[in-house]
Amino acid sequence: MLLHTTGSQVERWGVFEVSATGKTEGNPFTDYEIGGIFTSRNESVEVSGFYDGDGVYKVRFMPSFEEPYTYRIFGTCLEDEITGTFSVTAPGQGNHGPVYVCNTLHFAYADGTPFYPVGTTSYVWTHQAEEIQQDTLRTLQNGYFNKIRFCVFPKHYDYNFNDPITFPYEGKPMDSSVLTSDNFSQYGPRSEGNTWNFHRFNPAHFQHLERRILDLQKIGVEADLILLHPYDRWGFSIMPQDCDDLYIRYVVARFAAYRNVWWSLANEYDFMEKTTADWERIADIICRKDPYRHLRSIHNAWHNYYNFNRPWVTHCSMQTGEIEKTGLWREIYGKPVLVDETGYEGNLEHGWGNHSPEEMVRRFWEVTMRGGYATHGETYANPERILWWSRGGTLHGESAPRLKFLHDEILEKIPGPGLKPANILAFPFSATVDDWLNKGFYLAYFGISRPSYRHLPFSPDTRWHVELIDTWNMTVEDLGEFSGNASVSLPGRAYIALRIRRV
Amino acid sequence: MLLHTTGSQVERWGVFEVSATGKTEGNPFTDYEIGGIFTSRNESVEVSGFYDGDGVYKVRFMPSFEEPYTYRIFGTCLEDEITGTFSVTAPGQGNHGPVYVCNTLHFAYADGTPFYPVGTTSYVWTHQAEEIQQDTLRTLQNGYFNKIRFCVFPKHYDYNFNDPITFPYEGKPMDSSVLTSDNFSQYGPRSEGNTWNFHRFNPAHFQHLERRILDLQKIGVEADLILLHPYDRWGFSIMPQDCDDLYIRYVVARFAAYRNVWWSLANEYDFMEKTTADWERIADIICRKDPYRHLRSIHNAWHNYYNFNRPWVTHCSMQTGEIEKTGLWREIYGKPVLVDETGYEGNLEHGWGNHSPEEMVRRFWEVTMRGGYATHGETYANPERILWWSRGGTLHGESAPRLKFLHDEILEKIPGPGLKPANILAFPFSATVDDWLNKGFYLAYFGISRPSYRHLPFSPDTRWHVELIDTWNMTVEDLGEFSGNASVSLPGRAYIALRIRRV
Repeated sequence: MLLHTTGSQVERWGVFEVSATGKTEGNPFTDYEIGGIFTSRNESVEVSGFYDGDGVYKVRFMPSFEEPYTYRIFGTCLEDEITGTFSVTAPGQGNHGPVYVCNTLHFAYADGTPFYPVGTTSYVWTHQAEEIQQDTLRTLQNGYFNKIRFCVFPKHYDYNFNDPITFPYEGKPMDSSVLTSDNFSQYGPRSEGNTWNFHRFNPAHFQHLERRILDLQKIGVEADLILLHPYDRWGFSIMPQDCDDLYIRYVVARFAAYRNVWWSLANEYDFMEKTTADWERIADIICRKDPYRHLRSIHNAWHNYYNFNRPWVTHCSMQTGEIEKTGLWREIYGKPVLVDETGYEGNLEHGWGNHSPEEMVRRFWEVTMRGGYATHGETYANPERILWWSRGGTLHGESAPRLKFLHDEILEKIPGPGLKPANILAFPFSATVDDWLNKGFYLAYFGISRPSYRHLPFSPDTRWHVELIDTWNMTVEDLGEFSGNASVSLPGRAYIALRIRRV
Repeated sequence: MLLHTTGSQVERWGVFEVSATGKTEGNPFTDYEIGGIFTSRNESVEVSGFYDGDGVYKVRFMPSFEEPYTYRIFGTCLEDEITGTFSVTAPGQGNHGPVYVCNTLHFAYADGTPFYPVGTTSYVWTHQAEEIQQDTLRTLQNGYFNKIRFCVFPKHYDYNFNDPITFPYEGKPMDSSVLTSDNFSQYGPRSEGNTWNFHRFNPAHFQHLERRILDLQKIGVEADLILLHPYDRWGFSIMPQDCDDLYIRYVVARFAAYRNVWWSLANEYDFMEKTTADWERIADIICRKDPYRHLRSIHNAWHNYYNFNRPWVTHCSMQTGEIEKTGLWREIYGKPVLVDETGYEGNLEHGWGNHSPEEMVRRFWEVTMRGGYATHGETYANPERILWWSRGGTLHGESAPRLKFLHDEILEKIPGPGLKPANILAFPFSATVDDWLNKGFYLAYFGISRPSYRHLPFSPDTRWHVELIDTWNMTVEDLGEFSGNASVSLPGRAYIALRIRRV
């Protein structure tokens, strides 16, 4: 029977939630079903609900239209259907709806606002002690990033042996006090000592994640949720097929109504003991169960890119240092390219974790100039062993403000949804936009090259406004207007770009 | 008739020269021949001579054995044969003979001393005003480089419009005062206004080059002579086939006896209007006319590598930024790999001419770690328009001392003729030597990566001596001896290497 709802009105792309009490004999996670149909003039959407513990079932819905809705909640756990109505108001400030693919190779929010991903990675920030999580949120409030990649399941890897604050299942974990940097790799996903019931979730684990997804939503950060990953000592990465499927259905039922959710089927899928058939089956569940078509991808470990041509993949999510191929991938896959791991700023011994801040920023610019998007991470060794890339907390590096500069001062000022590679002015790594002839917009980025001057072969019958961008020092300098066979002086140092717009 | 010789004795790998007067009616460069046979117990070598102007013909010979020689000079320019004897003494200090290929992928002097090329580029340094040439020689005396690439013919390109101090032929050049940075590219090799007789050389041009080759020899620098190149306003790059052949024969007859000469058939051969058949014919002349088998290669402009598998090619001479392929080229071609242009330190607008000194040094190390050798160049714009890469003079950059450090402190201390790629310690860009198990030698180079520590998984029954090399600050620090599963602290900055030797 109806327990409560979130009220008589909800904003567009907000969450309307119905809570109900129902049968709990046996295993309420598997023995009963609950769902709802939400209907307005423009849409009628069927969604699955979930058991949230303590005898309570929930059904969540994200409305896409500002109009009256009726709903009907039903399922084997209920004695009687629940019905009701609610109205949908205009979206509040900062609510632009979910992010979708826009113009084939870029992104925009549902309200049409372009979304230029400048993301970061903090795999298990939500599984840390509360004070570290608050540090993470405070760091993110600086607006460095508009997307963060993190895992539903806890992570077992160097610099992160601590147990998570909650586990996703009923049961007990293995003793983590035996783990060290030298022996952790011996405790892989097959290790014994865990006693989980993969058919009984721990709702507190997911309730906590939802609070964090909402915290991110409030500060304009997309939650790129990693559903599965290989860095595991608990067996969550090697569950039986039916438990994988149960987990995926549960996660989608719980999280899909949050507008800032993206689905990353896996991190480093190719390091996991699953077949393509497994991934396709999981993708199919997500496609069928998520009525909002949130963005979907799957992330590789090492050059074994998943077949991004598969219809369910909305965008490429790559791990690679070969960022020069960004333009190629755009052409091959015809989907937005997100280089979600191209190495991290830090000083670990691993090549993926010891880039200078300059190199981190350079990689963002290189990917950006080729029409893709990159993702940040930070791995500075420290005595507390709290590395942003794994546990969140505070940033110790120097790249983040430069990435914010890239987003706020460059990407946000593009005329259109994104950049594409160009070589119109014979510049290395020049970029322009779709419909460039009309829009008259170019960027040229010199990377580690250090020109002290540059010829600009403009047509004599057009005038162009040229700005000097220092991508490291975060300055934009007006160089004036030029026409014909022009030339500009440049500072002769690295990490310089030009923004060139027709007057 | 005999005019004079260089004396009754010559050192091994020195030059014994016979000068003679002879017939000069008609065109002595084409109407007569002169040659010689030099015979000792161990060799009998036939060489061609040449007309040196003023009625004088010359025949030069480089003896390879310390023993008595007899010689016989003959030719259509002479009324009578000239005969004589001389003795050969031990080589003087710094004379190790010509450089040849050693151990398939490396180089050594004829006396077996390894030669690790650390070269530079100064295309037309010998064609500049005398004071600039003396500056160049003073710069080279610092020992930064042991090879220099330069052209026999003058060069026409930006930053080098000045006429050379001498021309290789009788005749007059076009007026160079009309040339500017904006219009120079309109005056290509087809331009009119030159009146050359391609059948009559200007001996002064070649005599001057010979003095410079000897100047280089005295300071231990190999002369990598570029015989043809496309940057031309005089027509030297588009001579008729018979004039090309006459020129090649003349150059080989004049220069082959100098032990420090290498033959580079062309710079940027693929920008020239010649066919593969032309290059093969020219290579054939050199192979037949140079009895000393000096090193031979041919240099590309842009990815169009010549077929280095051709038997006459002794080593790869590449222009490329794709230095990561060095190991691949070693395998494909089975010859030493010289990346003779991978961009220059400087601040020009061109991507090939504005690398930071750090990047110039990094490229040397990257190529070196992959078992190849790189070549330096410098292109800092300056008001005098004297750029080292083109005209020589003085260096304004910072890479040269670091390259000397690489040569003197690293390469010279390798146990053997050179490095090869290795991944034995799971290091990125690690290198070792042939017979590494016995020699127990490794280098690991971290490039722009900045590890603050590194595990060293040694076998527990061996001990290893580890040194920290700062390739930029030019220091070698002793980190001590290690065994078993060791770990070292590293400075967490870029351009660091480790040298690891078994105790």
